[in-house]
Amino acid sequence: MSITGIDAGSHTGPHPFDVDTRTHKGGDGQRSATVSDRWTVLTGNPNGGYLLAMAVNALREDIGRPIPLVASGFFLRPASPGPATLATEVVREGRRTATGQVHLAQGGKEVVRATATFGDLGADTVTHTAAAAPDLPPPETCEDPLAGLDMSALTMLNQVEYRTPKRPGWMDGAPEGRTEWEFWMRLAGRDADVAALPMLVDAGPPVVLDLGEAGSSTVELTVHVRARPAPGWLACRAVTRHVSGGFHEEDFEIWDSTRTLVAQSRQFAILA
Amino acid sequence: MSITGIDAGSHTGPHPFDVDTRTHKGGDGQRSATVSDRWTVLTGNPNGGYLLAMAVNALREDIGRPIPLVASGFFLRPASPGPATLATEVVREGRRTATGQVHLAQGGKEVVRATATFGDLGADTVTHTAAAAPDLPPPETCEDPLAGLDMSALTMLNQVEYRTPKRPGWMDGAPEGRTEWEFWMRLAGRDADVAALPMLVDAGPPVVLDLGEAGSSTVELTVHVRARPAPGWLACRAVTRHVSGGFHEEDFEIWDSTRTLVAQSRQFAILA
Repeated sequence: MSITGIDAGSHTGPHPFDVDTRTHKGGDGQRSATVSDRWTVLTGNPNGGYLLAMAVNALREDIGRPIPLVASGFFLRPASPGPATLATEVVREGRRTATGQVHLAQGGKEVVRATATFGDLGADTVTHTAAAAPDLPPPETCEDPLAGLDMSALTMLNQVEYRTPKRPGWMDGAPEGRTEWEFWMRLAGRDADVAALPMLVDAGPPVVLDLGEAGSSTVELTVHVRARPAPGWLACRAVTRHVSGGFHEEDFEIWDSTRTLVAQSRQFAILA
Repeated sequence: MSITGIDAGSHTGPHPFDVDTRTHKGGDGQRSATVSDRWTVLTGNPNGGYLLAMAVNALREDIGRPIPLVASGFFLRPASPGPATLATEVVREGRRTATGQVHLAQGGKEVVRATATFGDLGADTVTHTAAAAPDLPPPETCEDPLAGLDMSALTMLNQVEYRTPKRPGWMDGAPEGRTEWEFWMRLAGRDADVAALPMLVDAGPPVVLDLGEAGSSTVELTVHVRARPAPGWLACRAVTRHVSGGFHEEDFEIWDSTRTLVAQSRQFAILA
């Protein structure tokens, strides 16, 4: 932010993610917030990861520990842009970790119930890895898969940027049956931090779209925060291995610009 | 069970898993149970998956839907064999699914908090799979990795049977650094059902033991039930891909004798 007032570009003022996940504690201990209309997806409803990030942020403020090591959110009803309340509960404070729960409600009805364990990651030291970051060409040489598409109903696409070696087939109406997608992603106008990771793991399109499926709704999303992300583009891998009985899982990994795994998630979802 | 009274073997009476996950609803709506001493692990404490299975069972009785499609348990304190109480809450009943929560407590302190969404799996039809069952020799030609070992403190090993092509190195004091283990497993004396799956996904030894680690404690465990298991041995795959900052994930898959994926889980755990 400029101190001269001359720089009126995208770097002035707080970032939309920070504004839109803010909650305010009232006298009764309950928090109030506004679910923004800047994070909608195909259905017109706010993205689940955005709601989870808001819920986890509220809880972190009450728990006072830095990192949401693991968070699990159950999505009970579709949310809408507009007022929300968040009731938080500190469930257990231990030496190394603390666990809490938050109920996010709209119009008196619970929309998301999230439980999370917070702590610190020590020196972030990777002591063993049996996987590798996606092997992608540099983001500068990749294409913006949204270029030329009218996706104005998906306001979330104004907040998150994508780069991919090749646009996935389903985006051009020709699903290829691939259920693993590797691509670059970043928050537009601000580097990602641990607070953004629970949103970012849900910010890719469901890979089942490349099976010709019309859509997918998250039932439950678990995210593990494994390290603090370094600045820059994030290399992502989304995989669905099993679709059965109308349900599927989706695994998501985020690797930072130093090729360190910073988040992994799994969700259980229902085909639309 | 014999009707002549002659067969007094392992098939008479209910199975230990069914006895030990039973809960009784009292007049106040709260449930009581006894945490059995038949499911202890290396630490002498009851296995987390066993506790999760008990919690999910209690919730299922109140919710009245057959399948715990997805369940997430946070492990707040070590449990002990002895009395427990379970408070259940039906959070949301929908057309296709219903979600509830259960608090399992001992001595007035919460030990496990679990949230689960129940439903049905339709025709169990697999419509897409991008993975395969572990490629194991038939269980009859495999060895019992516990043969000749004195593991009497781990009472759980009396309830679950294992077969593996080769005993993992760490069992003989020579860790090999492999963090993927494929093996056969079954509940001793009874075929697995959907109720047993939340326990079975946590019934393998942590694969980080093959890194020379002393042990691991589960912080959170999410299990997806993907199909009703067919009778017979279950082919299992346990993988840890990342150990960092003193934490690791462990993914677990269970495939039934028809080579259908019946459960997958991920846990977030802390190195002992």
